[in-house]
Amino acid sequence: MIVLGIDPGLATTGLGLIETNERREPTAREWLIISTPAGLPLADRLEEIRSDLLKYLQQHKPDLAVVERLFFSTNVKTAFDVAQVRGVILLTLAEQGIACLEPNPLTLKSCITGDGRADKRQVQDMICRILNLKEIPKPDDAADALALAVFGALQSGTRTSDLGLRE
Amino acid sequence: MIVLGIDPGLATTGLGLIETNERREPTAREWLIISTPAGLPLADRLEEIRSDLLKYLQQHKPDLAVVERLFFSTNVKTAFDVAQVRGVILLTLAEQGIACLEPNPLTLKSCITGDGRADKRQVQDMICRILNLKEIPKPDDAADALALAVFGALQSGTRTSDLGLRE
Repeated sequence: MIVLGIDPGLATTGLGLIETNERREPTAREWLIISTPAGLPLADRLEEIRSDLLKYLQQHKPDLAVVERLFFSTNVKTAFDVAQVRGVILLTLAEQGIACLEPNPLTLKSCITGDGRADKRQVQDMICRILNLKEIPKPDDAADALALAVFGALQSGTRTSDLGLRE
Repeated sequence: MIVLGIDPGLATTGLGLIETNERREPTAREWLIISTPAGLPLADRLEEIRSDLLKYLQQHKPDLAVVERLFFSTNVKTAFDVAQVRGVILLTLAEQGIACLEPNPLTLKSCITGDGRADKRQVQDMICRILNLKEIPKPDDAADALALAVFGALQSGTRTSDLGLRE
């Protein structure tokens, strides 16, 4: 199964692609970002994100997508921007018929680290461990997208005990 | 010139269509709403709004669209929902090559009533006067969309003195 994690943002949208094998072990296929320049009008940036995402979906044909649920931010302008991008992303996934999970931050962190209050670094460390990565993926938006994809892989049947993390 | 005002919302998106004649006098062509049922997943509702809007744009071919700029709301959930819909609407307009104005509420009210702090009723009364309507258009979302379209018509060259409102 191929799972795509998406971390929406107007300047930078992170993408993380994971494949699970027949034993349901997840492997990171790649992680990357879609960037749009700050000087462009909002509508053009949304169009660029949609067009890039559409090409990516058609190329990689994920079976499942994971997009984090929005939570309140102290920066309202940024939160609105993220929400507008998120709308475009959800629309594009729906039009392509790709199922989408929408965990909230607490669920995401609980699922990956066992602790809903885990910080960014703890989540990233755990992602490295689950995916056998030597270094934390860069940039942060791509790492966050990979975490979402791992969540999708875990939710869709991979048992933690299958990941060699029982100890 | 044909101007489309759009008031984005997840449950109800208002549309108001205005035509200006060669003397730049605006007339309301129609007003309506796109509704989506609360039970549907967010992505499906976004898809429905996009699909309905796309059909409307192709049918009426507006020269200009007007979508209100977002402002902070006390209801964050609703604000995020509106923002997600707004992203889809701006994307759809951009893809169709339709120019779009994005006034903030203050600019909109100032332009229509001369007072940035005007209340909803004052704006609606003025819209009725400008458009020669006997009654305030219903529902509110459609009336708001008409106000946005009037703003677009006024901004794109119609002088207030042309509207018989000089007194």
